[in-house]
Amino acid sequence: MYWIKVFAPATIGNIGPGFDVLGMAVRGWGDTLYARATTQAGVFLSMGDNNYSLPTEPLKNTAGIAAAAVLEMLGERGGVELRLQKGIPAGSGLGSSAASACAAAFATNYLYGSKLSKDDLILAATKAEEVVSGSFFADNTSPCLLGGATLTRSCVPLDVTAIGHIDNLYVVLVKPELTVLTKDARDVLPKMIPMADFVANMANTALITVAFARNDYSLFARSLNDVVVEPVRAKLIKGFDAAKKAALEAGADGMTISGSGPAVFAITESLEKAEQIQKAIVGAFESAGVAANAIVTTVDKDGTRLLAE
Amino acid sequence: MYWIKVFAPATIGNIGPGFDVLGMAVRGWGDTLYARATTQAGVFLSMGDNNYSLPTEPLKNTAGIAAAAVLEMLGERGGVELRLQKGIPAGSGLGSSAASACAAAFATNYLYGSKLSKDDLILAATKAEEVVSGSFFADNTSPCLLGGATLTRSCVPLDVTAIGHIDNLYVVLVKPELTVLTKDARDVLPKMIPMADFVANMANTALITVAFARNDYSLFARSLNDVVVEPVRAKLIKGFDAAKKAALEAGADGMTISGSGPAVFAITESLEKAEQIQKAIVGAFESAGVAANAIVTTVDKDGTRLLAE
Repeated sequence: MYWIKVFAPATIGNIGPGFDVLGMAVRGWGDTLYARATTQAGVFLSMGDNNYSLPTEPLKNTAGIAAAAVLEMLGERGGVELRLQKGIPAGSGLGSSAASACAAAFATNYLYGSKLSKDDLILAATKAEEVVSGSFFADNTSPCLLGGATLTRSCVPLDVTAIGHIDNLYVVLVKPELTVLTKDARDVLPKMIPMADFVANMANTALITVAFARNDYSLFARSLNDVVVEPVRAKLIKGFDAAKKAALEAGADGMTISGSGPAVFAITESLEKAEQIQKAIVGAFESAGVAANAIVTTVDKDGTRLLAE
Repeated sequence: MYWIKVFAPATIGNIGPGFDVLGMAVRGWGDTLYARATTQAGVFLSMGDNNYSLPTEPLKNTAGIAAAAVLEMLGERGGVELRLQKGIPAGSGLGSSAASACAAAFATNYLYGSKLSKDDLILAATKAEEVVSGSFFADNTSPCLLGGATLTRSCVPLDVTAIGHIDNLYVVLVKPELTVLTKDARDVLPKMIPMADFVANMANTALITVAFARNDYSLFARSLNDVVVEPVRAKLIKGFDAAKKAALEAGADGMTISGSGPAVFAITESLEKAEQIQKAIVGAFESAGVAANAIVTTVDKDGTRLLAE
């Protein structure tokens, strides 16, 4: 059986104010998966060098779980062999487990005739996320599969809409070398939101959707404001406040947390500024005693895709 | 001095889940204002027959207040004479006071050379609303002036974006003969919103903005869901629950309250269904002992405009 090569991009869950609703795919970081069909039933998984100590038992890794879910949805008796090359650090808030799940769901479906819809693949990948994280959220799996920015109106039943992309958006993506446990990131969330904060986040989220629907950076530039989740999660990220201050001083139009963190991202429409902002954020984290990796990137319009067969 | 004739449409504040954020202008109901410049300073106001017992003292009526605000912004020494023909019942939740304010702001600016921007006019009209209601909210004045649907990201400073319109949307607009005091409608609002409800309203609001930005009714059809405000305000509208049930049974894709009520609106893309829905809602209100006026209408794309000069 022949091998195929699939790529699934990193994603920024929430896009600031749009908690559990918005997400976008970005270029530069992503998981690469080699896959082939097997006559033997089941899922066989191996990991590349960069394995971040992730489980390689197929049914404990989102890639394996998603592949198994797709085989079941297809009613196939055969199996798949997967070799996963991680390109997104686990536990970063950049949709690492979602990317593995999406790559595997996409590859398995492709190897067996591409009979499932993108919505089916999102469902399979999101179920895999649920097995590992305990929560059924599509704000990483949706943009990872569809590309661009996406809006999850409802998880059950799944209702996802691809919104679009912004061509002249530069995203400064920074991963500080910190650990934020998903459980902690969930535990700090407020259970009740003051009415004024509800309205503020809703308004900013709505304007971000218009920005992507119209490919209009100027609307995004003034709407990356989260008064609900950022204030509580920022406390879990050492150096966040100084990094944000440095980013804004360097000309960023906004900076906030990616998903549950610790990765952060800032936005600008100037590549020159983006490079200054990157230096400023990394410098601020380093001053706080936190090493950080960073890239300047753009929206990934394509989502999970076949690279070679 | 010559008379001009200006029209300002009725508006649906909130558009369901988008509390204090979204609004849209609709055809069919609206205020008509005749206006002319006067050499004498000040604002002179008279009302047509249909005056709904509104104050005719210029500085107690939103039309007069908005006109005075525009004269001040322009730095004009002259005045305006206004004759206001109400076409929107006061206290209906259909942006009645906003329409009067927008018509007067537009007319006064026009008579003195159209020097102000639309944003300036929204500001003047919204300030007039504030004098009368005590609150500074632009969710009626923005769509009334701009037409279509609008998104208010922030009131102070004012940040309003015209989103677009939906061509094949029929709005069934029903005004039950009930009084809902704005104070009561504000008093019943929850001060704190559960996280899940916050996410649900935000997601639906974001999808409504995409629906208008793309002129795609199918997205609106599944997003007119408000779990935050409708449940508490519906209790102030006798017959609401039965009317909503009847509307949905007659094929509406959603029904909710317009602004602070008591007016309600339902949506569909079929004119034939719209007429059935109208009968169903009015019938349900009548069964509850409440008389109701209704129209089937569409989005007003133009907003406040000159009809004749």
